[in-house]
Amino acid sequence: MTRTLSITIAALVLVSHFAIAQSPPRPRILVSAPELAEIRAHGSSTPLFREALEEAKRVAEAAVSTPIEVPRPVDAGGYTHERHKQNYRELQAAGLLFQVTGDERYARFVREMFLQYAGLYPSLKLHPKALNAKGGRLFWQPLNETVWMVHAAQAYDCVYDWLQPSDRKAIEEGVLRPMVRFFLNEQRSTVDRMHNHGTWMSAALGMMGYAVNDRVLSDIALYGTKRDGTGGFLRQLNELFSPDGYYAEGPYYARYAIMPFIFFAQAIEYNQPELKIFEYRKQILRKAVWATVQLTNPNGTFLPINDAMKEMSLHAREMILAVDVCVARYPSDHGLLWFARRQNRVTFDGAGLIAARILADAPKEISNGYRSMELRDGPDGTEGGVGVLRSIGTQGHTMLAMKYTAQGDGHGHYDRLSFLLSNQEREIIQDYGAARFVNVEPKFGGRYLPETDTWAKQTIAHNTVVVDGRSHYGGVFEVASKKHAERHFFSTNDPNVQVMSAKAEGLYDGVSMQRTMALVNDPRLAHPVVLDLFRIESGKPHQYDLPFYYLGHVMHTNATVQAFDTVRTRLGASHGFQHLWKEAEGTVAGSFILTWLNDHRYYSVVSAADEPTTALFARIGAGDPQFNLRNEPALILRRNAASTLFASAIEEHGYFEGVTEVSYGTRGSIQEVRVLVSTRDFSVVEYTGPNRFRLVFAVTHQPASETAKHSVTAGGKTYAWVGNFKLWRE
Amino acid sequence: MTRTLSITIAALVLVSHFAIAQSPPRPRILVSAPELAEIRAHGSSTPLFREALEEAKRVAEAAVSTPIEVPRPVDAGGYTHERHKQNYRELQAAGLLFQVTGDERYARFVREMFLQYAGLYPSLKLHPKALNAKGGRLFWQPLNETVWMVHAAQAYDCVYDWLQPSDRKAIEEGVLRPMVRFFLNEQRSTVDRMHNHGTWMSAALGMMGYAVNDRVLSDIALYGTKRDGTGGFLRQLNELFSPDGYYAEGPYYARYAIMPFIFFAQAIEYNQPELKIFEYRKQILRKAVWATVQLTNPNGTFLPINDAMKEMSLHAREMILAVDVCVARYPSDHGLLWFARRQNRVTFDGAGLIAARILADAPKEISNGYRSMELRDGPDGTEGGVGVLRSIGTQGHTMLAMKYTAQGDGHGHYDRLSFLLSNQEREIIQDYGAARFVNVEPKFGGRYLPETDTWAKQTIAHNTVVVDGRSHYGGVFEVASKKHAERHFFSTNDPNVQVMSAKAEGLYDGVSMQRTMALVNDPRLAHPVVLDLFRIESGKPHQYDLPFYYLGHVMHTNATVQAFDTVRTRLGASHGFQHLWKEAEGTVAGSFILTWLNDHRYYSVVSAADEPTTALFARIGAGDPQFNLRNEPALILRRNAASTLFASAIEEHGYFEGVTEVSYGTRGSIQEVRVLVSTRDFSVVEYTGPNRFRLVFAVTHQPASETAKHSVTAGGKTYAWVGNFKLWRE
Repeated sequence: MTRTLSITIAALVLVSHFAIAQSPPRPRILVSAPELAEIRAHGSSTPLFREALEEAKRVAEAAVSTPIEVPRPVDAGGYTHERHKQNYRELQAAGLLFQVTGDERYARFVREMFLQYAGLYPSLKLHPKALNAKGGRLFWQPLNETVWMVHAAQAYDCVYDWLQPSDRKAIEEGVLRPMVRFFLNEQRSTVDRMHNHGTWMSAALGMMGYAVNDRVLSDIALYGTKRDGTGGFLRQLNELFSPDGYYAEGPYYARYAIMPFIFFAQAIEYNQPELKIFEYRKQILRKAVWATVQLTNPNGTFLPINDAMKEMSLHAREMILAVDVCVARYPSDHGLLWFARRQNRVTFDGAGLIAARILADAPKEISNGYRSMELRDGPDGTEGGVGVLRSIGTQGHTMLAMKYTAQGDGHGHYDRLSFLLSNQEREIIQDYGAARFVNVEPKFGGRYLPETDTWAKQTIAHNTVVVDGRSHYGGVFEVASKKHAERHFFSTNDPNVQVMSAKAEGLYDGVSMQRTMALVNDPRLAHPVVLDLFRIESGKPHQYDLPFYYLGHVMHTNATVQAFDTVRTRLGASHGFQHLWKEAEGTVAGSFILTWLNDHRYYSVVSAADEPTTALFARIGAGDPQFNLRNEPALILRRNAASTLFASAIEEHGYFEGVTEVSYGTRGSIQEVRVLVSTRDFSVVEYTGPNRFRLVFAVTHQPASETAKHSVTAGGKTYAWVGNFKLWRE
Repeated sequence: MTRTLSITIAALVLVSHFAIAQSPPRPRILVSAPELAEIRAHGSSTPLFREALEEAKRVAEAAVSTPIEVPRPVDAGGYTHERHKQNYRELQAAGLLFQVTGDERYARFVREMFLQYAGLYPSLKLHPKALNAKGGRLFWQPLNETVWMVHAAQAYDCVYDWLQPSDRKAIEEGVLRPMVRFFLNEQRSTVDRMHNHGTWMSAALGMMGYAVNDRVLSDIALYGTKRDGTGGFLRQLNELFSPDGYYAEGPYYARYAIMPFIFFAQAIEYNQPELKIFEYRKQILRKAVWATVQLTNPNGTFLPINDAMKEMSLHAREMILAVDVCVARYPSDHGLLWFARRQNRVTFDGAGLIAARILADAPKEISNGYRSMELRDGPDGTEGGVGVLRSIGTQGHTMLAMKYTAQGDGHGHYDRLSFLLSNQEREIIQDYGAARFVNVEPKFGGRYLPETDTWAKQTIAHNTVVVDGRSHYGGVFEVASKKHAERHFFSTNDPNVQVMSAKAEGLYDGVSMQRTMALVNDPRLAHPVVLDLFRIESGKPHQYDLPFYYLGHVMHTNATVQAFDTVRTRLGASHGFQHLWKEAEGTVAGSFILTWLNDHRYYSVVSAADEPTTALFARIGAGDPQFNLRNEPALILRRNAASTLFASAIEEHGYFEGVTEVSYGTRGSIQEVRVLVSTRDFSVVEYTGPNRFRLVFAVTHQPASETAKHSVTAGGKTYAWVGNFKLWRE
């Protein structure tokens, strides 16, 4: 934390204490009283909001018309787990509906359910499925219990004034206060933790503090257990996001963490508007939401950087909340509106109503909200980042992302300079994500599977270079946590030649790496092409493996292939290699080509193989006795060298359609890749194909200003350029 | 062919000759003059038809505005192949558009292209990519050449009156007549062949006969080369379809063959209406189209029985033509209208206009057109068939199909009593289809891959019992062609207990088989459940393998599993087993359970294992050096026994949703399956699960009347029923 931020927090502490006595009228946690008046007046007549209202009514009506169930906790992803999750959703919906409609059935339901929790909670000890003594009571992990409290605070606030004092006493003393004490006594370190669990904890305590009129509690939530800014929500806002809004754990967890950030921020705005929380750290909340929506595939699913479930998308409830609150709070920022329209749902609260009205008034066509952008990592933006290049046109949306971040905490994976490629609204070259079936009880209770550690986190599970069969940083968390990759340059000035380049030192002793990836549009090509230059510097020879986790069916390779198709063995014994079957091995002189089909399009990796290169055809799924892994393919380019350059093109081409049985363009325009020169200072690579198609791409390896001049002669030709890179077309 | 049908054909021959001189005005091949008048008057103002018209204009405008290309044939799935296909589509579109619009640019285009073909064709010898001396000239196989002629006849007819006699002479003598002579001299046997190639040939010759005023030619097409009914179109109508309209090769080829049947039938109706072709054989054309649309999955893709490409669907051009013509020709048959609406496209001809007008006038909601039905196979309906059971409700559409047909000619697979299961608009237990990437040049020129024979056609590639590791009928075409399975019974009287049962003798010496499959709705279950009773009779012990080609990810098995996850070998050496990896082997006492996840739902196979049963976990893809196969999983239940019963339930249950991270119902309601009794005469099976869930199902193995009474005592209880089957619920 910088000194400036400490001072800001100290100032906020003073302001906060000063404001203690001025609690606004209820409701003041999930919605404010003025917002409620708007919802009552206009909610039913505003198109998208009416649907949210009706949906909440369906949930609440189903709830009030069936017996309340508050079961003794038994499982970690089964019935009682899901029941308690359903309960907090019903509490929230019924609470707000009582405020909106005045229908006392909803209030009675909230009271009754709270009273049942008050009856149950004091008798609970450690959850039977807890992983260790730090487990939860109502849920197997305390995390879920904080989520319960966030919703409980929202619901309790909505019925507070309606409740008899005796009910309040019973509820607060039976469950709310005991749970707060459980958190503060047994989970105390979580409040000060810079992690999504910490933010859920801050939000739970802070919102409950506002709900039960306990400003000490909300101050602990804001400033940490010492109430001095060394922990709590504001420090989490400082440290968990980079200045660009990148969330340290990656976009899947950003999605999860954004809900308590947004919920608590709203409650802070209602109860302590003087904190100007939505302006805090140059609108870091807006930047966080913007970064999170941008870190999605063209189909809206989150980029599976680090531990991630690949189905999770912009349509998640958390993202609908986050986008709507930002649309409402930052009305001059129009970038998010396209995403709000794409979600086609709004959240059931004051922000949802505002967003619905803005959408109703917006033009029918809003220009695509996705941008090429770089998001720096680290609290001060100096710990590498993620680069995202997009080409959006009539032929579709191609997205190329490269990861060169810091480790990203306990859910981080050991991969730097890895990439993902999507188009046709699907993954083309994938990142595996995590090995987990979330909430699926027969799969290890829905928790992370052991293969997350043994496979998904290992470097070989990603599209980046593995040296000597070992993961980056040796796969050691303590080492990796102290390191990060470095951005080299990121350029999107020319929309037809977008380039990003990043470096990583210290992944391995004595080996440094730089990857440069360009997304190029060329008038001769129907689709964008990716140029990939992976430069490795080392004084000693090593084995380098560069995987491409392509998705689709192999159509063609020009390599001479030996298939291991009667007896199959594994690629290795550790660092994830034990989970890869060796299907075949190919060699080629000149350029290696692999073409595959995915849905309606062909794809080719074409890679320079002037230096002896072996192509390994692999498949995920070895060493997997519980069938936990997806059995998907990989191409691994293997080379033994000291310093070297892996130079490849990834081209999308042609068309296949099964209903019309039409196929064309099975061969790409690039058939050969040649390294013209590659030194410590720069690399120049040539891409050629039929009809005299030729591209030459040059990139610097040393820091260069945009005006620095470079020149190199190769094959009798001189290539001269200014700045970090140049593309020649012929 | 039966005697009755021969007489019908002889009578038609007489009528035909009598009618020779009365050719109607042009156009008279693709549309009639009265239909053309309707199109001119109402085409642009009829919603769906306008789109078809605009689409034809786009094709034709692109064609007339670029230079005509009639390249010398080179490839079998590459540029020249696709160019000649595109040419005949352009000829057809331009020809009809000339008639509709009167715009002479279209006519000139058709003339010019025909003249270029007239210049090229005489010089063509055997196609360079022909597989043998019987190959085509313009295309690698004569089949494509007949398709060219079908479209050429339609286009030529449209410009015939506009052409100068000298043009006609040049075109007819340069390409049309030489191609006819090539067909009649070098491909003569095809005209008389009972096969889709034969029908394309008949249609080509017959339509060209009408187009060039050659009734001898159209008679050859109708009645065969001897013009006596021993070959040609009418005999194809008699023999290629069963009385229920089932097409001998299966639904994928029915889709392909239906186009020449429909095109030629329309031309016959215009030129020889006295043949009443649409009434022929009790409206066999209507039945054929009905059967073909019914043999599709809930998502509209064709059931991949025999050689089939699995992407092919109701949206194929051929099916749009066929459905529209039947909607137009059989206006009192409303069953097809739902399919026409689902296609949401109409064909660009007179029938398309009629269909579009009927659709525009139809109610907004048309009831679902899919039916449970049995389609008998064989010209007289005595050669087994296909049974399709459907349960369509608010929870979706579950389809269970069983194949008990004859061999189905050269594209037939060696499987009897196999099944397929679909819901959620996707395959749940699949049939592999064929190993082919149609028209994809790098995959063996787009032709059938060798693995179609070595894998896809073999019995083990299907969900049916394999005995002693050998395919049905030994996998010998000559043996299989003479045999067929037999229907036992098919009952859909009770929509909640739909049952089909079929038998197969002679698949193996001394082994007879019967499979009974029920699709049951139960008020206690959210989804239908499949009961599967596979009874095998044999005097000697054998090894029985029953595969389930489930699609999805394994969630759970109750078996003790030994995984072969460090070294993997194949399941066998021949009859398709050489293409299966042995992933694991499991044993269990009592009932075996395998649960998997597919998209939003869990599925379980639960199978009685009181008799020692091994569960083999397998994966397709061994013995596949060219990466031609899809690497998909299978469960194979293996048992060594003489007579035995494989009794299973296949249950859909629960819910998974990745965006909300909600999961429930991972365990099914059926957890145990017990064979209470199984003899030569009948089997009684019990299905039980938590909360005292119990079903008992009884089926007869000997032919029984619907009023025959049966009784058996098992476990101290007496089960008595009337007819072929009974279900008890508790």
